[in-house]
Amino acid sequence: HAAFQDVNHMVIFGFGFFLTFLKRYGFSSTGFIFLIVVLGVQCSVLVEGLLVFLLQRENEDGLKRITKAAVSMTAVVISTGAVLGKTNPVQLILMTVVEIIVFHLSRWINNTFLQVPDNISMMHVHLFGAYFGLAVASRFSEPSPRSDKNASTPKSDLLSALGTLFLWVFWTSFNSVLAVNKSKAIYNTYFALAVSAVTAFMLSALTTKDGKFRMTHIHSAVLAGGVTVGYAAHSIDYPWIAMILGLLASVITILGSYCLQRCLNPALKIHDTSGVHFTFGLPAVLGALAQVVLFVIKNWTNLPRLGCSVVIHLGAFCLTISLALIAGFITGLVLSFKLFKTTPVSKYFEDQFYWEVSF
Amino acid sequence: HAAFQDVNHMVIFGFGFFLTFLKRYGFSSTGFIFLIVVLGVQCSVLVEGLLVFLLQRENEDGLKRITKAAVSMTAVVISTGAVLGKTNPVQLILMTVVEIIVFHLSRWINNTFLQVPDNISMMHVHLFGAYFGLAVASRFSEPSPRSDKNASTPKSDLLSALGTLFLWVFWTSFNSVLAVNKSKAIYNTYFALAVSAVTAFMLSALTTKDGKFRMTHIHSAVLAGGVTVGYAAHSIDYPWIAMILGLLASVITILGSYCLQRCLNPALKIHDTSGVHFTFGLPAVLGALAQVVLFVIKNWTNLPRLGCSVVIHLGAFCLTISLALIAGFITGLVLSFKLFKTTPVSKYFEDQFYWEVSF
Amino acid sequence: HAAFQDVNHMVIFGFGFFLTFLKRYGFSSTGFIFLIVVLGVQCSVLVEGLLVFLLQRENEDGLKRITKAAVSMTAVVISTGAVLGKTNPVQLILMTVVEIIVFHLSRWINNTFLQVPDNISMMHVHLFGAYFGLAVASRFSEPSPRSDKNASTPKSDLLSALGTLFLWVFWTSFNSVLAVNKSKAIYNTYFALAVSAVTAFMLSALTTKDGKFRMTHIHSAVLAGGVTVGYAAHSIDYPWIAMILGLLASVITILGSYCLQRCLNPALKIHDTSGVHFTFGLPAVLGALAQVVLFVIKNWTNLPRLGCSVVIHLGAFCLTISLALIAGFITGLVLSFKLFKTTPVSKYFEDQFYWEVSF
Repeated sequence: HAAFQDVNHMVIFGFGFFLTFLKRYGFSSTGFIFLIVVLGVQCSVLVEGLLVFLLQRENEDGLKRITKAAVSMTAVVISTGAVLGKTNPVQLILMTVVEIIVFHLSRWINNTFLQVPDNISMMHVHLFGAYFGLAVASRFSEPSPRSDKNASTPKSDLLSALGTLFLWVFWTSFNSVLAVNKSKAIYNTYFALAVSAVTAFMLSALTTKDGKFRMTHIHSAVLAGGVTVGYAAHSIDYPWIAMILGLLASVITILGSYCLQRCLNPALKIHDTSGVHFTFGLPAVLGALAQVVLFVIKNWTNLPRLGCSVVIHLGAFCLTISLALIAGFITGLVLSFKLFKTTPVSKYFEDQFYWEVSF
Repeated sequence: HAAFQDVNHMVIFGFGFFLTFLKRYGFSSTGFIFLIVVLGVQCSVLVEGLLVFLLQRENEDGLKRITKAAVSMTAVVISTGAVLGKTNPVQLILMTVVEIIVFHLSRWINNTFLQVPDNISMMHVHLFGAYFGLAVASRFSEPSPRSDKNASTPKSDLLSALGTLFLWVFWTSFNSVLAVNKSKAIYNTYFALAVSAVTAFMLSALTTKDGKFRMTHIHSAVLAGGVTVGYAAHSIDYPWIAMILGLLASVITILGSYCLQRCLNPALKIHDTSGVHFTFGLPAVLGALAQVVLFVIKNWTNLPRLGCSVVIHLGAFCLTISLALIAGFITGLVLSFKLFKTTPVSKYFEDQFYWEVSF
Repeated sequence: HAAFQDVNHMVIFGFGFFLTFLKRYGFSSTGFIFLIVVLGVQCSVLVEGLLVFLLQRENEDGLKRITKAAVSMTAVVISTGAVLGKTNPVQLILMTVVEIIVFHLSRWINNTFLQVPDNISMMHVHLFGAYFGLAVASRFSEPSPRSDKNASTPKSDLLSALGTLFLWVFWTSFNSVLAVNKSKAIYNTYFALAVSAVTAFMLSALTTKDGKFRMTHIHSAVLAGGVTVGYAAHSIDYPWIAMILGLLASVITILGSYCLQRCLNPALKIHDTSGVHFTFGLPAVLGALAQVVLFVIKNWTNLPRLGCSVVIHLGAFCLTISLALIAGFITGLVLSFKLFKTTPVSKYFEDQFYWEVSF
């Protein structure tokens, strides 16, 4: 029960808190995240129940089922981060339903055809969420560069920073909830997170002009270690391996935040509101590759089995990312139909468009 | 210990956070709720100890006793919501002591004469709190309609919305802490809460003028499912029953918020600051009735025993609500004596009247 | 795991939240506390590992080790409170490393030469942190009295008050995490905290001019009971003893806040930003003495053993406080070298000096 409570707490309160950084979009950030999480959990439990019924699988305990549904919802929350402020609730709900179904499909293929264990296939959640979200975001027009609504105030940034600390604290629970060796998963996740937090501060001071810290760096890079180590947390034997992964994750996130925002995103015309590509996408890619490398190092004596396993791991990675991109792109196309009353660019990042607000 | 910590966390931090919506009353909302909770828990443990001593009952474990005291305090916190901003701390403390004693009395009558199990009689906490609070509030004069101090700003509403999410997450712990079948109680509570959250958003969009969401609807209706399902959470066998209860609870809350605020409250001259009548009162009434209906459906074959049980359930319900109304009304009368230096209407909803504040 | 999570949550999120009261220093308060905690935990685990290696001690479980490291970090967080807003990150990091090493040294001497049990020597954490911090603060020049940056706004005070509630709730976990008799430790801590909270409100109303509450009193005095009872929480047999300790702690904190800020601090030229001297220092001194008194009362029949134990307890107390003061003073001296680019007095309490902020 404590583990269920932690994950539930993290997904609903933590992500709602984490995404309050837009100055005029606090109600919608917390409210819509909450709405899609509760809707998505129900949808996810339903899909899982259908699979159990269709495939004659063994039925799981009720609590375990909600916990897994809440973990899956992280994918949708991350995708929402990419289109935050640009979609209306109806679009978000449709996106949630499609994403949950495709993510279950992706996990089912991984589990059945590639024999990937359940807890590993679940950790693809960050990868899937980030690239699905980016693919959806590519179909939404960018906000006007002159508009200042896509900005934060010190107050909203402070709330969001507190939300980040909150997520940071619960990340160990998140990575360990489905792991077999819980204690090891917690231990390794903690060290990866700790190193990536320290690295985030150092790199932020090194890469900005006058050695000041930038809140968005801290915001995204302190969590990178937890995302990266998620795949292998239960199997790493020495904490220094987790620490190196945390360091690399933080470096890739901060360098990525410069490269992507200056080069890739303008070229592809993607506007990624919360920077999910470098906050969750790149660290997840790193984690998936690191898992393969760690596996190779551990089993290099048994060459025939090794090759097969490496192919399966890489296959699962490619499958997840391609399914995410394709499904995201199609979802983005559908969502941009006029039918859904897409939000006009001038009303982006505005609570007033959806809420009765008295300023 | 984890369950105790959750309930403690929810009552002190959660409700303190939840009630910060008034723009100039943040200090008092959090501070006074905290004061009365810590005072009330001590008072409640004392009363419980006295009952144990007088009735030669079996002594309970220390932690269990504080947990039960913290659960009882929810009644006082809810009552405080009804008079928030209109009472001074001395009045609140007196109200706390009286309410705790009367609530223990009501539970003792329920347990002893009506043979209601302890965990059910504890769930009357919302019912008792809401109607006690309303009866007290009826003796306080209404704030001037021209005053704008009884309002919220987007910042204070955002804090309060985060507090609502916090309560939402912990509601499963609250409903399961005293239940025998914890796992089932958590499962059913979760689904009731999830459905009532989704319904809250839909009804809010449907009932406002231009299809926008209203924060006060979300604020009150997302918790309604948890309140309603509290009585029966440990005994519902199928989640869809909990889901229907969540749906009904949310509907009754939002319709109630319109009816009560426009018709009943002005007629009875009751000013209910946080809307506890529709947030906690109506869903609790619904829950108490639903429990009887579910009981009837389950045991309709055994008619003689059925009739007796229904009478007992309804008797416990009527007893609790009447005791709450009578005790609340008398308390309200006493509190409006000049002796207690009642707050003048012009100083309602003002932190500066009680705190050294530098704006 | 739940206990580890609670302590982790309290130290990182709780203290970060608690220290957001300075109006222009929110980013730095939360950010730097986070940075030094994650750095300090790693440093502490390393020092512990070194001791295990050098002294051939038994190796502990990984989770237990991080939990102990997180508890030790409270010392550093408290010291940081004394110099909050006056140090740059490099100084804070140096202070963290030195303090962690000296605190481990102090615990090692206590454990080895004075035979103080591990969980008692760990509770010196508040004492050590407060006096180390004060000694460091004595080497930093005071802020200009005309500057108003060393102040709080109602909004920042509200956030900080919520953080205080958060710490209050988790204090029971903190005091019980290393205790042998967990249930008793929780029970006693809860009552001590509850009484000190009620006393804080009463004394605040009694000592201010027009009977209003002062937020800084609440802020510091509600936690005093938890600090005081920390030493003896696992061994107190009757809750009323814990309640008396809570009462005394609250009294000493509020009286201390007047005496220290008016008399002692100006005389010694110490500027103590968060008032750690009366928030953590004085209650910890009271707790250490109370522990001796309780021990004497319990064992007064066995005089020879009694004398020896009292000397040991007092010795551990004096040793800890002297080591803290000496090490703190030396650290303060080193930190005020020009090498570390000390923050100019005009830039005290300014986020903008360290962060890219757009007001």
